[in-house]
Amino acid sequence: MSRILLTVEYDGTAYAGWQRQLNGLAVQQVLEEALTRLCGEAIRITGASRTDAGVHAWGQRAHFDTVSRIPPEKYPFALNTMLPPDIRVREGAAVPDAFHARFLSAGKLYTYRFWNARHASALRRNTHWHVPVALETDPMREALETLKGTHDFAAFQAAGGTAKTTIRSIDEACLTAQGEELILTLHGNAFLYNMVRIIAGTLAEIGHGKLAPDAFSRAVATGDRLALGPTAPPHGLELTRVDYPAAAFTDPASLRWHEE
Amino acid sequence: MSRILLTVEYDGTAYAGWQRQLNGLAVQQVLEEALTRLCGEAIRITGASRTDAGVHAWGQRAHFDTVSRIPPEKYPFALNTMLPPDIRVREGAAVPDAFHARFLSAGKLYTYRFWNARHASALRRNTHWHVPVALETDPMREALETLKGTHDFAAFQAAGGTAKTTIRSIDEACLTAQGEELILTLHGNAFLYNMVRIIAGTLAEIGHGKLAPDAFSRAVATGDRLALGPTAPPHGLELTRVDYPAAAFTDPASLRWHEE
Repeated sequence: MSRILLTVEYDGTAYAGWQRQLNGLAVQQVLEEALTRLCGEAIRITGASRTDAGVHAWGQRAHFDTVSRIPPEKYPFALNTMLPPDIRVREGAAVPDAFHARFLSAGKLYTYRFWNARHASALRRNTHWHVPVALETDPMREALETLKGTHDFAAFQAAGGTAKTTIRSIDEACLTAQGEELILTLHGNAFLYNMVRIIAGTLAEIGHGKLAPDAFSRAVATGDRLALGPTAPPHGLELTRVDYPAAAFTDPASLRWHEE
Repeated sequence: MSRILLTVEYDGTAYAGWQRQLNGLAVQQVLEEALTRLCGEAIRITGASRTDAGVHAWGQRAHFDTVSRIPPEKYPFALNTMLPPDIRVREGAAVPDAFHARFLSAGKLYTYRFWNARHASALRRNTHWHVPVALETDPMREALETLKGTHDFAAFQAAGGTAKTTIRSIDEACLTAQGEELILTLHGNAFLYNMVRIIAGTLAEIGHGKLAPDAFSRAVATGDRLALGPTAPPHGLELTRVDYPAAAFTDPASLRWHEE
């Protein structure tokens, strides 16, 4: 038996999210069916992040166990001939048996894309949130600075979150603007359920002047979800990268699984 | 009667191209049906460029005549509620009766996108040409320099071209690279049928070392289509902008229609 780690890109538009479910086709299910055919045994995979319906991934990670002798680096080639074109496996690697794609992840990079123009964009309709009111980037950037550091983000989660602790650390919070496109990148050790989309939705209200640049810090101080803006739609969001500590690939048993 | 000029964006993936035809749905047809409903009279539109199936547009231009009194700047709002989300009207403006979207265009900017990586990209599958072999950008840029200027591009057209002259001027030919993405932009006074896609396909062969950086200049000198590479696929191509001389909006009757 060997444990394999895949790096997976997908266009989430057509899927009911990452995780297998009763209603709608999940990315996990499509991958498991391809792997089961390829390996000739029932395969279950574990993803680093359970992305919602419509959310995209450039660097989702997922591990599975198999008795097959396929060289790990061959998985992308073999799977990409079987998968639909909106799911691509970018990398395959062997990892220790105690590796875990979800519980050993030490950081995640998310990208949220806004289309800030009067009219929606045909070419970006599945990847950018269309915000038709003019957004001021200065107050948005001012607000993003207040997110950095270790805070209790209890206000920054949707109902349905199952986190044991709501303390998270964010070390990158950038907004770049090019023409009508605004791109938010957030890197942190972990994120609560819908946290990035709540930040993106709040950021739009700040750029529109409906919330002040201290909205994030006030929500951290009060724990009040109502101090924040709406949850931005899923299709602007991309899971860009999942990080692991070096020891995850050499001596994963020495690491504590992170709490969720 | 007034003549209206629209700026139109579309994702060409689902369409049989710009021009109405017997097989498959054309962007022109979808726009004409929406305009006919909106204006309450049969509307025919004339586009600046007859883009092929799968080709995208950010700045296609098209004109039509109508007796309706809809303020020109309201067309985007009215049409975008009726159009499918992969076609958006970005602008509407009144133009003189002698304006012509196609025959008065003085320049076009095209963008061709390559995805240069081992594996295809799920998120870019409809907008980038996947080239799995490593491309060297230095010889590609060297070759692009030789395109600039006024040349006889007879070798740079597909069968089916109906151009009266094959002399064209190119004043911008740039290649930018960011990670796996290569973006070619070409600006010229006009382009022959499939000319941008032939340039893109040849450029990939030059980047791969199968053709020398003088391939373009040799094809110009010999007129030989076989001196060039294959026609790159349509889905990497976008009609980005169409330019008109200022007089087209003030005194179009003073201008010569350009030969095709």
